Amino acid sequence: MYNYSRRMNTRYRTSAVNRDGGTGSAGVPGGLTVRVANPLDPDFDRGATNPEQLLALAWSTCLNATAQAIVRGRRRTAVRVDVEMRDAEGRGGYEFHVAATLSAEGLDARATEELADAAHQRCPVSRLLHAATTVTVRTEPFDADAGS
Amino acid sequence: MYNYSRRMNTRYRTSAVNRDGGTGSAGVPGGLTVRVANPLDPDFDRGATNPEQLLALAWSTCLNATAQAIVRGRRRTAVRVDVEMRDAEGRGGYEFHVAATLSAEGLDARATEELADAAHQRCPVSRLLHAATTVTVRTEPFDADAGS
Repeated sequence: MYNYSRRMNTRYRTSAVNRDGGTGSAGVPGGLTVRVANPLDPDFDRGATNPEQLLALAWSTCLNATAQAIVRGRRRTAVRVDVEMRDAEGRGGYEFHVAATLSAEGLDARATEELADAAHQRCPVSRLLHAATTVTVRTEPFDADAGS
Repeated sequence: MYNYSRRMNTRYRTSAVNRDGGTGSAGVPGGLTVRVANPLDPDFDRGATNPEQLLALAWSTCLNATAQAIVRGRRRTAVRVDVEMRDAEGRGGYEFHVAATLSAEGLDARATEELADAAHQRCPVSRLLHAATTVTVRTEPFDADAGS
């Protein structure tokens, strides 16, 4: 018998609201509120954030949490996500080019790549981004001296 | 002549780093730092955020900023993004089901749908999510009394 309720099993549900556009604030009801501003504005508020940074925070956290689950917390890992806003030639407006770079303490280049591939297959944010042509995953050596 | 530099024109570049996984902090170098925690953890820190909320903040801001650009700031618009973490049947782990709901003051249902479609075509975060099967865009009547 087809178990619909199990298939749709929801573990967690949350939301965020923006009523101001690119300049003002956005917030999670009962949770985090962030000031947002347009980085292309000459008067850009450097204390504010924007979709590029929020997306980078979301994916770096999700991908590194997934990597930590795979290594069972037994070695340190780090993920940096770089986002570039570029002109979208041919269709107007802008597009985001997004690159995640994963590193893992004590793993050689090949093992780091295998970990990055496994995490990118399993991370829920990666699963949303898999089909996008402007998204990549890379690796680099772990920098033990970088700030935690 | 093929103009490579124009095609690759980067307007803005930023990044974020996570070295802690799902519990700890993540940050933009020189910018916003957020505490993150796993919402499935029984000791979940309700003052912390997570990839679901950060993604919802990113997309709601990007899509509403795009809607505001389309209406040239002449009417109020709002975007709520709901994110559900569900079991990913068949491939293990979890997947995010993400729904954006757009509303616009003074527009009927059809005009609101046209605005939502146009914004979803142009918003850079939407462009990253277009091909994902667990992402939808909806509309609802504008609630002028909701908090700004």
